[in-house]
Amino acid sequence: MALFSRTKILYSTTKCYMNKYCNLKVSVRSLMSKQLVYNEFGDPLQVVKFRECSVPPLGSQEVLVRMLAAPVNPADINTIQGKYPVKVDLPTVAGNEGVGIVEDIGKDIEGISPGNKVIVTKPVQGTWRTIATFTKNVVRVVPDDLGVVEAATLTVNPCTAYRMLVDFVSVKNNNKVVIQNGANGACGQNVIQICKAWGIKNINIVRNRPDIADLKQYLECLGATYVLTEDELRSTNIFKEKKIDKPSLALNCVGGKSSLEMMRHLQHSGKMVTYGGMSREPVSIPTSAFIFKDLSFYGFWMTHWNEQANPTDKEKMMTDVVSLMCDNKLKGPVHKMVKFDNYKEALENALTSTGFTGCKYVLDFTT
Amino acid sequence: MALFSRTKILYSTTKCYMNKYCNLKVSVRSLMSKQLVYNEFGDPLQVVKFRECSVPPLGSQEVLVRMLAAPVNPADINTIQGKYPVKVDLPTVAGNEGVGIVEDIGKDIEGISPGNKVIVTKPVQGTWRTIATFTKNVVRVVPDDLGVVEAATLTVNPCTAYRMLVDFVSVKNNNKVVIQNGANGACGQNVIQICKAWGIKNINIVRNRPDIADLKQYLECLGATYVLTEDELRSTNIFKEKKIDKPSLALNCVGGKSSLEMMRHLQHSGKMVTYGGMSREPVSIPTSAFIFKDLSFYGFWMTHWNEQANPTDKEKMMTDVVSLMCDNKLKGPVHKMVKFDNYKEALENALTSTGFTGCKYVLDFTT
Repeated sequence: MALFSRTKILYSTTKCYMNKYCNLKVSVRSLMSKQLVYNEFGDPLQVVKFRECSVPPLGSQEVLVRMLAAPVNPADINTIQGKYPVKVDLPTVAGNEGVGIVEDIGKDIEGISPGNKVIVTKPVQGTWRTIATFTKNVVRVVPDDLGVVEAATLTVNPCTAYRMLVDFVSVKNNNKVVIQNGANGACGQNVIQICKAWGIKNINIVRNRPDIADLKQYLECLGATYVLTEDELRSTNIFKEKKIDKPSLALNCVGGKSSLEMMRHLQHSGKMVTYGGMSREPVSIPTSAFIFKDLSFYGFWMTHWNEQANPTDKEKMMTDVVSLMCDNKLKGPVHKMVKFDNYKEALENALTSTGFTGCKYVLDFTT
Repeated sequence: MALFSRTKILYSTTKCYMNKYCNLKVSVRSLMSKQLVYNEFGDPLQVVKFRECSVPPLGSQEVLVRMLAAPVNPADINTIQGKYPVKVDLPTVAGNEGVGIVEDIGKDIEGISPGNKVIVTKPVQGTWRTIATFTKNVVRVVPDDLGVVEAATLTVNPCTAYRMLVDFVSVKNNNKVVIQNGANGACGQNVIQICKAWGIKNINIVRNRPDIADLKQYLECLGATYVLTEDELRSTNIFKEKKIDKPSLALNCVGGKSSLEMMRHLQHSGKMVTYGGMSREPVSIPTSAFIFKDLSFYGFWMTHWNEQANPTDKEKMMTDVVSLMCDNKLKGPVHKMVKFDNYKEALENALTSTGFTGCKYVLDFTT
């Protein structure tokens, strides 16, 4: 049942709408949404514009969602720049991930109710707005007690980590070992936590830095079996001394020398999955690694997986990831909440960082 | 039944033995074998020695084979150099592939008879000798009418070509397209012929050379759909003009720029299989090819496949390849027969060529 039925009540102001406990003023003014839109590809700081506009009438297969939070991801930036290979019809509202509360549902909607917490599960739906209408097939109800940041950032990094640990090598039931570089990144931290939850030993490679001891401690607290700098990996004796088996799966978001060093330590017939290229250098593979070591190399992109996956696999993944989060086994990223009005701060952060380290900026639509 | 039973007849001379229609002189002298042996790894021209020695008594599970021919392959050279990752107990007889005629069988042998033509199907059995005893599980009976050169060179290049066309992309039944570099090499020529026999369209990349027109004509006669030089591939319009679909499978024995250029033309989710590295440069893969094009990369090594394959798959492969050869759909390589005494000429050829182009030297053990 709808708490508010848009067919009966026309919301007087956005502010009022945002707080369902305020006194509603019934009037003929449309429901308004604040949103970040762009009409051309380019520098996000130039092309992304703030606008306020009325929300169109709710279709029978649509839900009306009051957004709570949406992260600013590297993919959002690249999409606005026109550098991301996803189809975008301009003008459009920016933002791919996000969480909100259902305020109203179309007449043919079943299984979603006003008051439900929902996440947006398909890209380029435009999550950077206060109020949105989404077709029912792009949202998914999540438990009320799922944290806002966890929910807002669920579909990219946690799901990427989950799939890479499931789809390439059967690591869960075979006492196998995973190695990853960029281990301190948003995805890497999810990999560590899922490995810990599933009992998978994991070797984590990070770049050396002044606060390396703190970083190591942080990642070990998340569940890292070993954390090594790239230099330490080159001369490590953990394999020679049989402290840990050689890994059968390598997860690469760096490329260049870092991926070469990881493949040196892979088991015979091991697999490497590339999901990022922070160093901007290609993955370079010696012929002998192919022929005599039988290594194989794959890419992973969550967007592509979602396009071709069957509903059963999607459902299982979502259920598993949400459970891990609700059980406090999978935490949201280190983040900073940024009030929607200060969105430029979030854009600037995403433009200047590599997107794989540091603090995730999350737009906060609540007032 | 044995035509000659070694327990009853001791062969007087090797020469006599080599011609079963000669008058046998029964004597107490042992059966002698001429062979190329090495006692240390190193330069084949230095470490490989010609010797003549007596053949040990035939075990109950062994067959006595009069060798007809054995090729000198790059892998033979690398094995002697100690650069090939296969276990060799020194001293040993050199040579991996070869064909001969069974002269005698051990008392527990079934399914192999004297007079049978057999090929050696496992590496490092020592095929460079006039007379050999092999355990039954390393030889396979082939049809009498299978050509000597085809039989002698069957287990490496034709089988590698066959497996690469079968194991990675289901190219046979889907009107798919294969692209390969080093197409004029020993394996490449087999790929072309098997593609033709199976109705698979194939794009063949070769290096430019003075006699390029002749080479193109030769490969087209074998069954090549297109033959392009590396430069021509860079600017080809065969895909834009929809003359042929983009390939789903690339076979790489070059690496470096050549493999990069092939992967540019692969379909989304296409696969590249590396089985050689003629350029001595690694396969370098841009991150975007992994993530947004979903390409994946594999190695292939016949030796490893043979170690882990099941008997059914091996049997089917052998039957298929032999059938293609007996039907004249798969020809032996361009070759030069070299009398065994002139073996140094064959070694020198293998040492100076890349092993992927030109003429295959085949040792001829017949007198």
